[in-house]
Amino acid sequence: MVDRAQIMVAFVSRRTVEHDDAYHEVAERMEQLARAQPGFVDLVSVRDPITRQGITLAYFTNEDAVRAWRDHPEHREAQRRGILDFYEDYEVTVSSVTRQYGRIARE
Amino acid sequence: MVDRAQIMVAFVSRRTVEHDDAYHEVAERMEQLARAQPGFVDLVSVRDPITRQGITLAYFTNEDAVRAWRDHPEHREAQRRGILDFYEDYEVTVSSVTRQYGRIARE
Repeated sequence: MVDRAQIMVAFVSRRTVEHDDAYHEVAERMEQLARAQPGFVDLVSVRDPITRQGITLAYFTNEDAVRAWRDHPEHREAQRRGILDFYEDYEVTVSSVTRQYGRIARE
Repeated sequence: MVDRAQIMVAFVSRRTVEHDDAYHEVAERMEQLARAQPGFVDLVSVRDPITRQGITLAYFTNEDAVRAWRDHPEHREAQRRGILDFYEDYEVTVSSVTRQYGRIARE
C-alpha cells in the first residue's frame, strides 16, 4: 500500500452525543463507498468512545481521486448530515505524502 | 493554527496488551516534549481502548522541525522502547499539507 499512496486525507472530528444508530449506519456506508472509489488505497479510522474524538486517515493515489470522493453525491449528503447531526466539530487536512515507514497489519 | 501547519506526521499504531503504566508515562512525556519543539504547531491523538489501535497527528511548520523531533535523544529512546514493548505494529507517514478546512476545538 505504501508505494501507491500519494495523498493522505485526515479527518479529525468529535461526535455529538446523539444519533448513534444513524451515525454508525452512515459511517459504515461511507467507508464501503470510499473503498470502492477509483484511486482509493487505504483507510484507517479510530474513535475514543469516551472523548468521542475520532481520526480517520484515507489514502488515495492522486488528487483527482480525492476530489471525486469529496464530490460523490452520497458522500455530499453524508457530509451535510455530519455537520447537522453527527459532529460537534471537525477538521479536514489534505496532504501530499513525502515518506512512509513501518507497517500496520491490514484486514 | 491552520495557516502555520505545513507538515503533518501521522503515527498509526496498535498497542500491545502489556506495559500500560510505562506506556502512559512515556506517551505523556513525549507529548509534552513534542509540544516544546521549535516548529511544533499542534498534536491530536486518539486511541480506541478496545482495539488498542491509535492515531496521532502531529503538525509542524517545516521539515527541519520534523527531523529535529524525530532525532531528539529522548524521543529516540521512546521509539526504541515503543518497538520493543509498546506497539504490535506501527506506521509513520510524513506529508506536506495542501489544504485544511473546518476547525476542531483546541484545549
